[in-house]
Amino acid sequence: MSDQPRVEIYTKTDCPYCEMAKDLFDSKGIEYETYNVTDDDDRFEEMVERADGRKTAPEVFIDDELIGGWDDTSALNETGELDEKLGIATADDGEIVEHRTLIIAGTGIAGLTAAIYAGRSNNEPLVIEGDEPGGQLTLTTDVANYPGFPEGIGGPELVNNMKEQATQFGADLKNGIIESVDDSSRPFRVEMKDGDIYTADAVIAASGASARTLGVPGEDELMGYGLSTCATCDGAFFRGEDMLVVGGGDAAMEEATFLTKFADTVYIAHRREEFRAEDYWVDRVHEKVEDGEIEILKNTELTEIHGSQEDGVDHVTLVENDKGHPTDRLDDPETETFDFDVGAVFYAIGHTPNTDYLEETDVRTDDEGYLKTTGGDGGGQTETHVSGIFGAGDVVDYHYQQAVTAAGMGSKAALDADEYLEDLERADSSAEEVEPAAADD
Amino acid sequence: MSDQPRVEIYTKTDCPYCEMAKDLFDSKGIEYETYNVTDDDDRFEEMVERADGRKTAPEVFIDDELIGGWDDTSALNETGELDEKLGIATADDGEIVEHRTLIIAGTGIAGLTAAIYAGRSNNEPLVIEGDEPGGQLTLTTDVANYPGFPEGIGGPELVNNMKEQATQFGADLKNGIIESVDDSSRPFRVEMKDGDIYTADAVIAASGASARTLGVPGEDELMGYGLSTCATCDGAFFRGEDMLVVGGGDAAMEEATFLTKFADTVYIAHRREEFRAEDYWVDRVHEKVEDGEIEILKNTELTEIHGSQEDGVDHVTLVENDKGHPTDRLDDPETETFDFDVGAVFYAIGHTPNTDYLEETDVRTDDEGYLKTTGGDGGGQTETHVSGIFGAGDVVDYHYQQAVTAAGMGSKAALDADEYLEDLERADSSAEEVEPAAADD
Repeated sequence: MSDQPRVEIYTKTDCPYCEMAKDLFDSKGIEYETYNVTDDDDRFEEMVERADGRKTAPEVFIDDELIGGWDDTSALNETGELDEKLGIATADDGEIVEHRTLIIAGTGIAGLTAAIYAGRSNNEPLVIEGDEPGGQLTLTTDVANYPGFPEGIGGPELVNNMKEQATQFGADLKNGIIESVDDSSRPFRVEMKDGDIYTADAVIAASGASARTLGVPGEDELMGYGLSTCATCDGAFFRGEDMLVVGGGDAAMEEATFLTKFADTVYIAHRREEFRAEDYWVDRVHEKVEDGEIEILKNTELTEIHGSQEDGVDHVTLVENDKGHPTDRLDDPETETFDFDVGAVFYAIGHTPNTDYLEETDVRTDDEGYLKTTGGDGGGQTETHVSGIFGAGDVVDYHYQQAVTAAGMGSKAALDADEYLEDLERADSSAEEVEPAAADD
Repeated sequence: MSDQPRVEIYTKTDCPYCEMAKDLFDSKGIEYETYNVTDDDDRFEEMVERADGRKTAPEVFIDDELIGGWDDTSALNETGELDEKLGIATADDGEIVEHRTLIIAGTGIAGLTAAIYAGRSNNEPLVIEGDEPGGQLTLTTDVANYPGFPEGIGGPELVNNMKEQATQFGADLKNGIIESVDDSSRPFRVEMKDGDIYTADAVIAASGASARTLGVPGEDELMGYGLSTCATCDGAFFRGEDMLVVGGGDAAMEEATFLTKFADTVYIAHRREEFRAEDYWVDRVHEKVEDGEIEILKNTELTEIHGSQEDGVDHVTLVENDKGHPTDRLDDPETETFDFDVGAVFYAIGHTPNTDYLEETDVRTDDEGYLKTTGGDGGGQTETHVSGIFGAGDVVDYHYQQAVTAAGMGSKAALDADEYLEDLERADSSAEEVEPAAADD
């Protein structure tokens, strides 16, 4: 296309959000230039200057206008404004684009496994990528515990394998974000953020969970300017700095271990005495502690991040109390508050399930927002409290949250949905035909 | 070893039970000769003659004595007689051989995934192979729906990958069969069929389910002489014959499709009108029906198998009734009974969960013998009704029974067991130390 605006993307090596940005433009058939800033100081300086001081990749520009990182680009895509800037906006908001047997929300491990199984059941699923295509696993460089790969496999590679497998069996993957699902009549109405509407006989919610933040002062201002929720994306930008990882689970251990490649020292602030991570990761971290690369700050919480968008993170305020959970004990005389110098902060404090688009439906969630399913046959079913809507993966599972458990649940959701759809078809065909009463079998 | 008896194994290409037999002797450090009878008519004739007319692989001989197929060899191994014949029997029955943190019963997908996760949690599991090492998946030539392998993967290859992965993370795999688990005190006492006793702090039951039989006349006599529960093992022995597959699920469709390579015509007898298999498999079968390679006998059941060990299966007796489940309607005048000529019969009628060794414990099972778990956190937990015993895979899941659902559950069982073991350790260490009362946190 000759009159296409000029799209530029600053990228980094091993940067999943950069891949997502490129995938987004690919899916729109838009050409773009990429500049890899890894090991290229000039490009890096240029990026920081054009991006108003932000040191995070990707940074996207359209006709020299700063769009921003993946979040900004994705947000603009949701509202349809990105398509307008690219000159590919479609008219006719609110039109029903297509009816589908099955719509799957999410292309993480759960969504893609559901797509593989649904494809094999001839339910030709439409799989909506959402705002984090590929899901959490795209942020993991090496998946060692997914059964079947004794040498380990990269997260993005595993996701891509599953995409290929799902597509082979008839799944259609679509870039876009679901605004809402309407369950007040059947078929379900699935409205996209860009205004397109699909109808579907069944919906599988495999929309995962998104990285959680603390809500402390400095957070909003410094997110992307020294504060990050993705070590593999942004760690390399803060080479030689002291870094703080907040959290005590697998992700925190993995990110801290990864960051030792770049950091002077990595500090892990954890609000309790014991980590809740796998022993494997705790052992890796303790090895790094012995090597002097990691220091553990137990019973410690972050209360403020200090710095500026120009100069990044300067220092943080921490609180500590030997009894654990110090922010619950701010009045305790033994709680100590102190400033601590670090040049970057990484959050690894868990996730919030993505269920906004289901708010108008009658699905039920627990106090933390995780989708409730109804238990059931042979080790856990995936039916929600709305007949025809099924849940799988991290949007349901607040406990195990492994790639292979998400895959297992995705498979179950597709099989449960297929059973529902076959019942529906039988009910439809018996309503159409006038049949003799069935024998009492 | 120079005074080792001479072990000979007749094998076939693509024969999982042959691999199991070889693995068994490998695990004992016993050398053997193999003769592959695929495409070797002389060897095949020789095998049939030495095996008293049986046309099934493997056939095992020790010092010219016919041991039999995998089932016979495995049964002999259970009682310790095999070791006696091999001159490697150990003395001292009933001795406690070793204490282990965690014992996993079964090396199918569930057991091996549990082993991978338990290894990573430093629980150094001992994984007992049981009488079907590798589990059901070793009988599947091509697994297309296990997420992560867009080109598909062979069942035995996937199992071997997982074995390698589990071993890497510290799991020990052991050939042998569990006779019983004693939960009357802790640690659990796990007694092997050969008399060895292990103790364990926790047990994961991932012992799967075994192929079901019908109990019709002729079955016991002809099993291995034209009647089989494994098409991939034995299909090629009946080249050019008409074959009957009994069943209506995925396995029946897959076996019927596979058998078209060898059969004149494959007949599928199913007791109902509709197959309950995946659409994918139903479609494959219907393609073969159109090609004239498969014929479907709906609402039909097998009531007798006729033949002899000398000449194999000659014909079968079938019953048919349009209302389905004809053996429940034998008095119905519309039920038709007829003889039907086939040269081989393959059962694909589901499985019975393997829980015999848990009989003396307080675990609970449903009416069909499947292990009950207690539901629970985030999409299904794996705790049984005995604290410290966990269940995973087809021994629990009577409904989904997919490789990936078994894997998901195996992972959960290991994580649940690890939580249990950590609580146990904490309780032990607080019992050992005299500590001040904990703060009310």
